[in-house]
Amino acid sequence: MAYHSTSLAALFHALSDPTRLAVTEALCDGPQPVSRLAAPHDMALPSFLKHLKVLEAAGVTTSEKQGRTRIVALRTERLAEGQDWFAERRRLWSDRFDALEAHLDRTQETPK
Amino acid sequence: MAYHSTSLAALFHALSDPTRLAVTEALCDGPQPVSRLAAPHDMALPSFLKHLKVLEAAGVTTSEKQGRTRIVALRTERLAEGQDWFAERRRLWSDRFDALEAHLDRTQETPK
Repeated sequence: MAYHSTSLAALFHALSDPTRLAVTEALCDGPQPVSRLAAPHDMALPSFLKHLKVLEAAGVTTSEKQGRTRIVALRTERLAEGQDWFAERRRLWSDRFDALEAHLDRTQETPK
Repeated sequence: MAYHSTSLAALFHALSDPTRLAVTEALCDGPQPVSRLAAPHDMALPSFLKHLKVLEAAGVTTSEKQGRTRIVALRTERLAEGQDWFAERRRLWSDRFDALEAHLDRTQETPK
């Protein structure tokens, strides 16, 4: 449970920055070299590389050298964990809302 | 677009801490007084209140005084934004994967 939370917290931390969010969104189009990922960001390369490190440390991305180029790819199974967390929360609060509505329907029924 | 990203980044920042994640999960059971939310956390109250402030500033929760008690509730529409973001990313990478698979099927077909 603690590990699970920490792990989710690390995932959300990786996504808690606009640059890292934009990189994650860009990678949905497929693996890309660092230079292409960095191009839209008005940022010194070392700063950009730090963001990539955070994403990789959190398991959001993986990367490998191909010749002189480093290719970054999304780890979709890690993003799926985030989606599952939100889906489970929604299920819980929807169940609660349905139960509340049913309760109100019962208590507000006009007595016959 | 910038606002959208910042706003999502703020949502994920709110969820990037195990205490705040646990509070968010607890609130799926319905609105609760601060004291009950704080109880499971081995933390001084001022530190806990800081976490609640981060959640409220990011729009994850809302709160109101009822007499001498402050009641905290989840803003489910804000969590829905997070779920939508993950769902859209999954849609994009699934489409890409399907396209890649179709391409491989075509190129690897045995010539007749």
